[in-house]
This record gives sequence, structure tokens and C-alpha cells, in this order.
Amino acid sequence: MKSTKTVILAAGHGTRMVSEKPKVLHEVGGKAMLDYVISASEAAGADDTAVIVGYKADIVKAALPENITAIEQKEQLGTGHAVLQALPFFENFNGNVLVLVGDAPLVRKETLEELVKAHEDGGFSATVLTAVFDDPTGYGRIVKNGDELIKIVEHKDATDEERGIKEINSGMYCFDAQALKTALQAINSDNVQGEYYLTDTIEILRGMGKKVGSYPTPDVDDIAAVNSKVQLAEIGKIMRRRINTSLMEAGAIIIDPENTYLSAETKIGKDTTIYPGVITEGRVIIGENCVIGHNSRIVNSTIADGVDIQISTVLDSFVDENTHVGPYAYLRPNSHIGKNVKVGDFVEVKNAVMKDGAKASHLTYIGDAEVGKNVNLGCGTVFVNYDGTNKYRTVVEDNCFIGCNSNLVSPVTVKEGSYVAAGSTITDDVPEDTLAVARARQVNKEGYALQMKQIKKISK
Amino acid sequence: MKSTKTVILAAGHGTRMVSEKPKVLHEVGGKAMLDYVISASEAAGADDTAVIVGYKADIVKAALPENITAIEQKEQLGTGHAVLQALPFFENFNGNVLVLVGDAPLVRKETLEELVKAHEDGGFSATVLTAVFDDPTGYGRIVKNGDELIKIVEHKDATDEERGIKEINSGMYCFDAQALKTALQAINSDNVQGEYYLTDTIEILRGMGKKVGSYPTPDVDDIAAVNSKVQLAEIGKIMRRRINTSLMEAGAIIIDPENTYLSAETKIGKDTTIYPGVITEGRVIIGENCVIGHNSRIVNSTIADGVDIQISTVLDSFVDENTHVGPYAYLRPNSHIGKNVKVGDFVEVKNAVMKDGAKASHLTYIGDAEVGKNVNLGCGTVFVNYDGTNKYRTVVEDNCFIGCNSNLVSPVTVKEGSYVAAGSTITDDVPEDTLAVARARQVNKEGYALQMKQIKKISK
Amino acid sequence: MKSTKTVILAAGHGTRMVSEKPKVLHEVGGKAMLDYVISASEAAGADDTAVIVGYKADIVKAALPENITAIEQKEQLGTGHAVLQALPFFENFNGNVLVLVGDAPLVRKETLEELVKAHEDGGFSATVLTAVFDDPTGYGRIVKNGDELIKIVEHKDATDEERGIKEINSGMYCFDAQALKTALQAINSDNVQGEYYLTDTIEILRGMGKKVGSYPTPDVDDIAAVNSKVQLAEIGKIMRRRINTSLMEAGAIIIDPENTYLSAETKIGKDTTIYPGVITEGRVIIGENCVIGHNSRIVNSTIADGVDIQISTVLDSFVDENTHVGPYAYLRPNSHIGKNVKVGDFVEVKNAVMKDGAKASHLTYIGDAEVGKNVNLGCGTVFVNYDGTNKYRTVVEDNCFIGCNSNLVSPVTVKEGSYVAAGSTITDDVPEDTLAVARARQVNKEGYALQMKQIKKISK
Repeated sequence: MKSTKTVILAAGHGTRMVSEKPKVLHEVGGKAMLDYVISASEAAGADDTAVIVGYKADIVKAALPENITAIEQKEQLGTGHAVLQALPFFENFNGNVLVLVGDAPLVRKETLEELVKAHEDGGFSATVLTAVFDDPTGYGRIVKNGDELIKIVEHKDATDEERGIKEINSGMYCFDAQALKTALQAINSDNVQGEYYLTDTIEILRGMGKKVGSYPTPDVDDIAAVNSKVQLAEIGKIMRRRINTSLMEAGAIIIDPENTYLSAETKIGKDTTIYPGVITEGRVIIGENCVIGHNSRIVNSTIADGVDIQISTVLDSFVDENTHVGPYAYLRPNSHIGKNVKVGDFVEVKNAVMKDGAKASHLTYIGDAEVGKNVNLGCGTVFVNYDGTNKYRTVVEDNCFIGCNSNLVSPVTVKEGSYVAAGSTITDDVPEDTLAVARARQVNKEGYALQMKQIKKISK
Repeated sequence: MKSTKTVILAAGHGTRMVSEKPKVLHEVGGKAMLDYVISASEAAGADDTAVIVGYKADIVKAALPENITAIEQKEQLGTGHAVLQALPFFENFNGNVLVLVGDAPLVRKETLEELVKAHEDGGFSATVLTAVFDDPTGYGRIVKNGDELIKIVEHKDATDEERGIKEINSGMYCFDAQALKTALQAINSDNVQGEYYLTDTIEILRGMGKKVGSYPTPDVDDIAAVNSKVQLAEIGKIMRRRINTSLMEAGAIIIDPENTYLSAETKIGKDTTIYPGVITEGRVIIGENCVIGHNSRIVNSTIADGVDIQISTVLDSFVDENTHVGPYAYLRPNSHIGKNVKVGDFVEVKNAVMKDGAKASHLTYIGDAEVGKNVNLGCGTVFVNYDGTNKYRTVVEDNCFIGCNSNLVSPVTVKEGSYVAAGSTITDDVPEDTLAVARARQVNKEGYALQMKQIKKISK
Repeated sequence: MKSTKTVILAAGHGTRMVSEKPKVLHEVGGKAMLDYVISASEAAGADDTAVIVGYKADIVKAALPENITAIEQKEQLGTGHAVLQALPFFENFNGNVLVLVGDAPLVRKETLEELVKAHEDGGFSATVLTAVFDDPTGYGRIVKNGDELIKIVEHKDATDEERGIKEINSGMYCFDAQALKTALQAINSDNVQGEYYLTDTIEILRGMGKKVGSYPTPDVDDIAAVNSKVQLAEIGKIMRRRINTSLMEAGAIIIDPENTYLSAETKIGKDTTIYPGVITEGRVIIGENCVIGHNSRIVNSTIADGVDIQISTVLDSFVDENTHVGPYAYLRPNSHIGKNVKVGDFVEVKNAVMKDGAKASHLTYIGDAEVGKNVNLGCGTVFVNYDGTNKYRTVVEDNCFIGCNSNLVSPVTVKEGSYVAAGSTITDDVPEDTLAVARARQVNKEGYALQMKQIKKISK
């Protein structure tokens, strides 16, 4: 296989999107459409990728990975004009140039590999990625003679016979770089729209005696482009089906794949069960034999084997083996949860370490802290990490027991094996094996409750 | 266009619903089916609407908007008899009478407008709203001669040739008021069921030499009527698709429209993202560039631009620009949340104002209160608004800092710029710039924890 | 009808499941596939059931109900060999033997009843459960002569004419026990795979002059078997549709049956509304006129009439009439919640009784406790049931009022009509009608907050 460069068209506004955002940055499964196209191209072996930006160019540029070249198309004068802007990117190059579109996020690595293979095997100067549609109405038709592509006819310009053709143009191509260069320099804008059409390169190359071919994708979804938010939702559904099917084939149990929203960068171990309504975003690694309960949302996190998470939110964190999280827990960024830990209901952890065997069973806030092994945090424990100006760090060493409704006012250390009595506000360090108490003694005022009720009755 | 009155049939029990509730009050998307029909009729320009009630008439009457006339049909003697009860409503009227059914909530304004137009343009005395079904089995067939409707034949009475007809009767009509009056007075119950059929008016009018027509709706869903809870669910699905498609076309991003439950009275600004599982009920206005996180439920509320809500419940409240809510927050009625506010996880707000920049990050209850600008409410703060008999109001003025696990016992005021120490129960007002403390000093009993553990081991 | 015994094939590994778990133990709707087959067989009247186990036999055995016989097939030598292992189970039996497969959980009681009826009415020695597929490719075809089955031909061995047959073999049968015994003893493994095929019994019985028949199920889903996790999800979807349709027909309102996950053992009363995303597992009984809000999860629990549950989790508990739960509440096992109780947001109840009219509106933990009638638990109340070693029980008698952010340190009793002041840690019993206070007095240090701010500004 020859070396390959990719040019991705991403300059359009996409008026039908009814959006302030450039079309290619609209997201499917939490990831910009353009990113899928870049990933597919790179996975298919492209060595270098340029993106043609135009509408809100700065925003699109800012969203590009570092290794991607942005090329600005100042005026939107058609697809041929767009690719022409990229001429410096490939004019001295002797390999293939893939021309892709940034709003077709379903294009797969395998499809691009087959396109390039068909291109090289056929000895074509240009090969059009096509699809065979039951109803091709509206699409440009692929007119062929045997294996050779003769021309692409727009629907409105097609004869009745041509309209019968079911093979249609996807707008994606593999070109020989030098052939593309020559052809681009020959196209003009002598047409009703006054635009430079990339499709014109086909006839130019034919006119030069070169062979042009087509590769029809076996999965027509590959070429679906997004022009509206309704289509964005449709494409999202197909993407989910693909991702979920692939994860199930690899061993995940997904109870309802139509109602499960996993990112393309999610990996799931064997026999892990994903309940309905689960969302993952970004890079999420989940181990084997886990249960991810319904409506949990996990973002950029790693979950080890045997973890049970019930209807909780986990952001940028790590959860180690056999730990229980939730229901209704919230792990905020930089939480490092050990093995056999319990992070129970209505518990928030933020920027904190909980070591193996630690427990925060309910109604607890652990922020900017280190919680030792086998520590038990009573219900209502608060790590008071903020004084209105600064945030401080608290350490609770191994085997401590923190009573309910206690405050640990940071910075403070509770040393190994100590107890904090329920209802205490701890402001000073607690030495090892110490009982720290900071609360008032109970006074029972007998009969007083009766009196209170009477007063209230009177005052009403 | 002539003036139009509407008669809606809503007297039936709907036995197949297996319900104690009158059929037309069953809800689709949180709104009674009958309300959709009334709304469509009013939107299509009807000046006056009467609803024929029968089964559990009082309950249906109580559910009607004030401007709607209820007419009771004491006995259920057929559709003709039902409309006859409404005779006083239109007997001196010279316009159109739309006859609609209260269990067909998908009928659209546009369809009714076209029906009336077809009625008037055709010079018909009656025009039947019809649909063309691929499989018309079971429905009444529309027998026509050119544009003129000859008769409606019930499936069971139809000849083989008539059964081949795919245009069917919806049970909805546009009549000339005076023609309807005349025809109704002529129908009888000489049939097997002993009922007065509204369809008999067609042949009566034809017999009088008048023209009758039909208007086939382009969207067959328009005429779908609900007879069971299974059908209620099916119609709900179509309604959601319509609502969500329309909101996406107006600029909302709905990740999974099949799993998003938005009321017909929901408006969503451009580029706001609605995650899966979101429910809105009643009148909900959401601004631009918001994120409404998965499984949030928003009822009768207004959300300004740039708000981020994560898996939370919002009832009858207002949330101003760029505020963050949730995950797992609960805004109860009459919460007024300012700009750049944080209502974090496990926080409840009820009948309270939070001014711009205020923060309640976690595990907090704010009830019957006013929280000033830039106030920070520490984790575990409770507004003690209830003494077992009465509820009182608390004010925390601007720039205060309330320490964690504090109680503010209402009625109480914390004046501007004051601090409440963590773990304090505040029963008296706090002057400006004051530090209020109400907690015990910490005592460390060294070695005591060790002792406690030994005692426990012995006592086990 | 003759007496019937059932043999269920459950010995296979199911390599395509990509799982460590035996295939038949994979779950659909929270219940093992094998359990559905056992239930259908028992519901159809089988007196005795044997399950052939093989792959991970011990795990499958351990999962069987007590009344089911496990028979181990040491080597997997084909379906005929599998049934042969069960010979002692039926060799002296003179009734019918149903042979079912443990990976086809959609088989229904009604289908098995009809199969047995067809078997007996036809006077057959064997009757094959079949289905008519539009596309039978890949399946064994049923070759018949009138009502009599001649043979079953595998797809790969079928002639072109036989491939045109649309009736296919499900792999499930009804045999005459003695005929099965005879036929099984005659089958051999003289084939390419070297396996004993149960289908060979058909030709053996025919060769003995016996009649064989087929019963085509009217619902082709009945015979769907699971071979991969993708199919497991597909079957789950069909199961949900069946369960939800049946519950709607019985009077439940299910807003979106495609996104509602109810166990086969769920019962729902008339006019109860189930919001989207609800999950029930195990035996769940829900009364009439309830609202089960979105994304609630209810496991092995009973909910009485008129209960409202909003986005909450309920495990192994009972909730009595007209009680409100949630949003975001967590009832852990052995919670017994009375009538007209409020278990509000961010409240956990565990192993506790809340009597009629009791209220825990927010941010409360009630564990190992008895809460009396009309008790009000203030926000932040914690039942301190654990001292790091043991758990104790607390009693709050009728009509008590527990102030916010209080701790009730178990074991402790608050007697009838008493008040606990907000912010108190109660360690001793509280007599009747008593006000118990355990907190420090408030001190206001005026101007001190100002000073604190200045110090911070300097120290920054």
C-alpha cells in the first residue's frame, strides 16, 4: 500500500443545523463528528491529515488535535475550491489522497481501507466511495462501464435511465495525489452556482485518459452525512448500535442497547452488566464482572473488576476492585477509590483518596482528603475543606472511626486508630488511639415539650 | 372562512381502558387527551367549543377549561344522539360545526384547517375527515363518486368491492351548522344496536340533494383514537416523535428523541442539549446553550440561557443564567435561583431565593429563605424552617459564609458579611461582619480509643 | 390429558456468549433463562422436571429450584446423548415427555399446552414444536406428508425443494415416554460430527411404523434461542414487550413500554402510572392508583395503593397506602413504611419501621429503628446505629419531633411526645414530653468576620 494523506472538508456552516456552532463540531456520543472522521482516517493508516476550515474557522481550529493541519478556505466556493486550498499539503506527494467530509461520522476504518485497496488494485487515478441505495432519489448517480466509472450525474441533470441507477456518490474519494493536483488545476466555476465542483475532476481525469473507479461500501450507514439536528439524532442511534453491538460481541452484557449511551472510547470487560440508561463519555475502562446500575454516568474514568455502581455519577476518577458505589453517589474529579470500599448513598467524593476497606455509607462529603484503610466515616461526616478563601487537605489515618454528623475542619489530621465522637467539630489534630469529643452534654427538660406545645397552641 | 364551532365527543367510558378514569382524561405526555383536541380546535380557529360528557360527567366537567361548554348526554345512545344534545349550542348558528372525538389527541391544527377549507371550497354540507390506510380492515369505508361522498359503509356491511376501498372514516367531520341540525333531527335508531348513528346524517343530507365530501389527511396518525392502554402508549410514542422533531428543527439538540419525554408546552432555545431520559411536564421554557442532563425532570419552570442541570428535579421554579444545578438536586416549588449560582449534589431548595453567585455545593436544605449574593452555604447546612407547628423564614444577607453542618433556626437573620462557624446551631440574629459560634470545644482523650476497642472485644 | 414430565437441555457452554457463566444462567429481565423454561413447563402442567447439566454443572445445579432434578451429562456428545442421560427419569413412565431447551426463555405455557394437545389429539409418538419462518435459511426443515412429519432435514443437507419449506424445527418436542426410550436406545453417532442427534429419533420412530407430527407455534418468538449476548438483548426486548403489554391490558399505565423494565413476577394495580426507565426485579406487587416515577428501581417489594415514588430505589421493603417516597430516596431491605408517611429526598431507611404519618423529609438516615406515628424527623437527623463494632436499635415513640442535624446514638429511646433540639447529640433516653437539648450556646463575636477576611487577604 502506498502512503496516504487525508483532506477533510469541514468549512461549511450547515445552515439547516439551526446552530451557532460549526456543523462538524456537533457531537455524536459526546464526541465531535469531525473527530470520528479523523480517527477513522488515522486508523485506516493515513500518515497525515489536513482539515479545510471556513465557517467559524478559529473555533474548528481550536478543536483540532495537535497533529492535524488546519487549512483555511476564506470563501466557500465549492468542494473543488476547498480541496484546492490543500494543494500545498499534497502537491509534492506521490501517494494517495483521501478526501473525506467532516459531517459523515459513521465512515469506518475498514471502509476506508477497502476504498484504498480498491483504488490501488484497480490502478485508478480516482476512486469514488459509493453506496447502493434502494431509493437513490436526490443523490448523484454513478454512471459506469464495467468496472470503470464514466461520470457522476447530479439527480436533477440525470436522464430517466440514469435515474434508474442505484449506486450513488458519497462525496468521499481516494485520489492519486498527482492526478488530483492536475485535475484540480483544471476545474472551473462555469456553472449556474458559480462554484468549483470536486466531481468535475472525474471527467477531467477521464479526459486525460486515466481510469476512475468506485468502491461501494457494504454498509450504507458509512456515508450518511448530517445536515440537521434530526439527522444528528438518527446518526447517533446508528453509532450507538454499532458501539453496543461491538461491546456485546466482546463480552459485555447490555440489557437494552437501544437505551445505553456508551462512548466510542469505552472498553468493557467480560460479563460486566450494563443496565439501561447508562452513559459513558470520553475514555472509560470498565473491568470484568462489574454491575453498572441504571442511569449511571461515567466520564473519563477507570473501573476495576467486580465493582458495583448504582445510579451514580463518576467523573475523572479511579475505582478499584470489588468496591460498591451508590446509589446516588457522586465521585468528582481526582477521586481514587481503593478496593472493597463503600461509597454509599448521597456521598460526594472530590479530589480524595479512600484506601482499601474504607467506608462512607451515607450522607457524607469527602473533599481534598486522604482516608486511610478500614476507616469508617459516620453518616453526615463533612470534610470542611474550604474556609471561604482557601481549600485545605485533611488526613484520616487507618482504622479510625468518625462519628456521625462530625466536621473535620481542614487542615487537620486524625491519627491511626482514633475515634471522633458523633456530633463533634474537630479543629485540632487527633493523636493516635485517641477519643476526640467536641460536643455539649445532653440536658433533659422534662415536661417542657408539653409546655412548648401549649404555647404554640395559644400563639396560633 | 366562515365562523366555526366545535363539538367534541367525550361521553364514553372506554371499557377496554380497564380504568376508573374517563377515557378522554387519560394522559399523553402529561396532558389529557381531550386537552389536545380542544387545543387543536382552538388553534384552527374555532370560536366556541362544546364537550359532550357522559361517563363520570362531573370529573370530565371539572377538568375542562373555563371557556369550554360542557353538555351532558345522560344516556349513551350513539354518536348521533351525542351530537344532538349539543343542538342548542349551534341551532341558531350559520357557520361550520366541527365534530371531533376526545380520544384522538393526535389531530393537528393544520389538518382541521385543511378540513374546513376543503369543506368550504367544495361547497359541501358535510365533509368527513378521512385517511387512506394500506390495510383498512375493520374501518368504515368512504364510498365516493368523483369528489362527492356517496355513503359510509361499515366494514361488516361492505361488499367485496367496497372492502377494496382504502379511504376510511375517522369519525371527525365538518358540517354546515344548519344542515347538521336538519339531518340530526331526521336520524333514528332503527338498527340492530338501537343507536343513533352520526354517519346516518350523510345519507340524509344526500337524500336532501346536498353535496357531501371528504378530506383525507396526509398524516394518518392524525385520526388515531385510543381504546386501550396499549394504544395510549403507542399514541404517546407518536406524540413524542412529533414534539421532539419540531423542537430539533427549531434548534434543540436531543441526543435520543425516542427516549426523551417533552411536553407539548415545552420550548427550547438553540443549541441546548437534552440528554436521554429527560422529562418535562406542563409549561417549560429552556433557554439557549443549556445542558439538561440525563433523567432530569422539569415541571412548569423556566430555565435561562447557559444553565447546566445534571440529573435533577425542578418543580415550578426559575433558574437564571449560567447556573449549575445537580447532580441529584431538588428544586421544589417557588425556588428562584439567580445567575452563576451553584445548587450542588443532594441539595434541596424550597420556596426560597438564591441570589447571584450564591453557592450550596452539597448536602444542604434551603427552605423558606432568602440567600444573598455570593453567600457560601457549607455542606450540611440546614435552614430549620419548621418547629413542628409553624414555618418561618430565614435571611442570609450578601457575602456571608455559613460553616458546615450548621443549623439556621428560623426565624433568624445573618447579616451581611458574617461567618457562622462549622457545627453551630444559630438561634439568634447575627449582626454584620460577625463571627457566630455555637459549638463545644474539642477534648482529646488520648489512649481512650484503645480502651474502647478492648471493652468492645470483651463485651462481644 | 396424560401426565407429563419435562427434560430441559442445559448442558452446553455457549462459546459465542463470550462468558464464564453457563449460558442458561444468563438473565433476561433479572431472571435466568433456564428459570423461564422451568416456569413455562410447570405452568403448562408438567409434574416433574429434570435439567441436563454439563458445562459448569455445579453452578447450574446450585441455581436450580429444590423440586428440579439435575442430571449430569459428563461429555457433550449431542442432544440425543443428553436426553439419554435422563432415561432413568422417564423409563418407567407412561405419559408424555417434553424436551425443552434451557436457552429459549420465550417459550410460553400456552404454546406447550397446545403442543401437548396436538401430540395427544394426533395420536403421535413424537410431536415437534415448529415455527413457520419467512426466511428459514439455516434451520432444519420439517418435511411433511399431510399432517404427518416424515423427517427433519438440516439446511446443509436439504434439496432445493426442501429448502423451499418454511416450517422449521425448534429443537423442542413432546414424546411418548416409552417411544422416546425405544428410539433413544436405537440412535448412534455414525455421522461426521460423531454426535448422537435427538432428531434421529424421528426417523427411527417412523421406521417402527409410528406416527410423528408437528405443532407450529402461532408466535415465532416462542422458539427463539440465545447464542450470543446480542441475541440475549434482542430476546430481552421481546420479553419486555410481552410483560408490559400484559400489564397494560390488566390496567397499568406504562408511558413508554419500550423503556420500562419490569420483571415477569411484577403485578400492577389498575390506573397506576409507570414512568419511563422504571426497573422492577423479582417479585414486586404494586397497588392501584400509584405513581412510580421515572428511573425508580424496585426489588422484591410490595407497594400499596395510592403510593407516589419519585426516582428512588426500594429493596425488599413494604410501603403502605398514600405514602410519598423520594425523589432520591433509598429504602434498603426490611424497611416497613406505614400509611401517609413521607420519605423525602436524600433519605435512607434501613431495617426500620416508620409508622403512619411519620415524616423524614430530607437528608436523613434511619437505620435499625422504630419511628412512631406522626413523628417528624428534622433534616439531617442521623440514627447512629453503629459504634464501629456493633449495631443497636433506636426507638422514637409517637408524636416526637427531632430537630435538624441531630444524632440519636443507639441504643436510645425518645419517649412519646418529646422534642429534641436541633443540633443535639442524644446519648441518653428522653422521657415523655421532654425537651432534650445537647448543644452549645451561640456567641456572636462582632467585627470578627471582618478581621478574619483581612487576615486572609494578608496571608494570601
